[in-house]
Amino acid sequence: MYLIIDVGNTRVKVAVTEIDTVKEVFIFEKEKIISELKKITSKYSISSSIVSSVAIFSEEEKEKIDTFLNPVYLNSETKVPFKNNYKTPKTLGVDRIALAAAAVKKYPNKNVLVLDAGTCITYDFITKEGVYLGGAISPGIAMRYKALHTFTSKLPLLEPSEVESFIGRDTNSSIHSGIVNGISNEIDGIIKQYQKKYQDLTVVLTGGDTYFLSKQLKSVIFAHPNFVLEGLHTILIHNIAND
Amino acid sequence: MYLIIDVGNTRVKVAVTEIDTVKEVFIFEKEKIISELKKITSKYSISSSIVSSVAIFSEEEKEKIDTFLNPVYLNSETKVPFKNNYKTPKTLGVDRIALAAAAVKKYPNKNVLVLDAGTCITYDFITKEGVYLGGAISPGIAMRYKALHTFTSKLPLLEPSEVESFIGRDTNSSIHSGIVNGISNEIDGIIKQYQKKYQDLTVVLTGGDTYFLSKQLKSVIFAHPNFVLEGLHTILIHNIAND
Repeated sequence: MYLIIDVGNTRVKVAVTEIDTVKEVFIFEKEKIISELKKITSKYSISSSIVSSVAIFSEEEKEKIDTFLNPVYLNSETKVPFKNNYKTPKTLGVDRIALAAAAVKKYPNKNVLVLDAGTCITYDFITKEGVYLGGAISPGIAMRYKALHTFTSKLPLLEPSEVESFIGRDTNSSIHSGIVNGISNEIDGIIKQYQKKYQDLTVVLTGGDTYFLSKQLKSVIFAHPNFVLEGLHTILIHNIAND
Repeated sequence: MYLIIDVGNTRVKVAVTEIDTVKEVFIFEKEKIISELKKITSKYSISSSIVSSVAIFSEEEKEKIDTFLNPVYLNSETKVPFKNNYKTPKTLGVDRIALAAAAVKKYPNKNVLVLDAGTCITYDFITKEGVYLGGAISPGIAMRYKALHTFTSKLPLLEPSEVESFIGRDTNSSIHSGIVNGISNEIDGIIKQYQKKYQDLTVVLTGGDTYFLSKQLKSVIFAHPNFVLEGLHTILIHNIAND
């Protein structure tokens, strides 16, 4: 079995996989990474593993992980099952590399646009020839609420809420409309720009806000909340096969 | 002649007006408000004035201004030439009150959507019957760049830039695409929502990013960089006539 480890700034997502099946998914805080990984490896027999991390490990943490897992660490040098045509491939985030890998595996010979709605909303486009071109990065839902509150003197900090009418009738509903209805229009509009240029576009939505956003969008999308983990699994298998 | 004073968080915009003509516009830093207003009033003979302020004056500043100008201070109690159907009229920002007044004066008997692109992007809708309904508030262009940098560990702080292709090919062009192309799609999409519900919609674009944004949008809009000042002038005349 394989261990797929996705380390975010505060949380870690781990999947135990077998060929193309996800056996179990674990989510825990970053501080607990060593103890949690030890628990998982005592429950499952792991043959290979991969780590993708947007945060930086301490030398001590890395040494401990290496001792009992010796994983593949995903970076810009790692072999991937797609052609990376990003102008500056070394600056392409590990999450975006994983999403592109998942796209070519799940939707081969398709033009795929992957939207990852988390801290940021990232757009990643992979052609049907399996070439990664690039995309876009914009502030995520929670970040927009935080920005309105942090960078103005009078606006409150609200929790995201569905929008009843796009005409907000008080401060709170005006903010919900501006952010949630705004993002929906942003995403639907960008999907249309891609559809105009690339026929037969497949659109994937992933990330923490997948469920919330999928209810708001007009466009047809495929929701895959664990697309980063699926991509990491694909990259791990690709590296085992090409070793 | 009239003196129209719009006090922002850091800058003050002042217009000297006469009936419906703007004679001169002044922009200066907030700290210089007293000395600059004295200069302007020594150059022009001012009969009435209005102050709209998103910032709070010190008692000392207010006393000084009262002594030589005795202006109308715009707040939620001020008489306005439109019907305010906002659910919480006391929380409607003074800028948005001024924009609604400008809309009914400039485009009477029209459905008007006013977009003010500054620190925030505000949307304000006034029906052709002169009824203010509400709108939306979302983060402005500069705020989105600032948020991506402030609330992530790795993204740089960039200056706004026009977008060559909506597929960003490196980190910087991905951010420009996500923010500038994102906002353009957000705005064009929201305008379409209003157009669908309200025929013969007139769209006004104002605020500091008017020029930058007007080049990006597909929708037909009227650019009025001084729409807040025009609205304040309208409110002042309305109060003089109804006194």
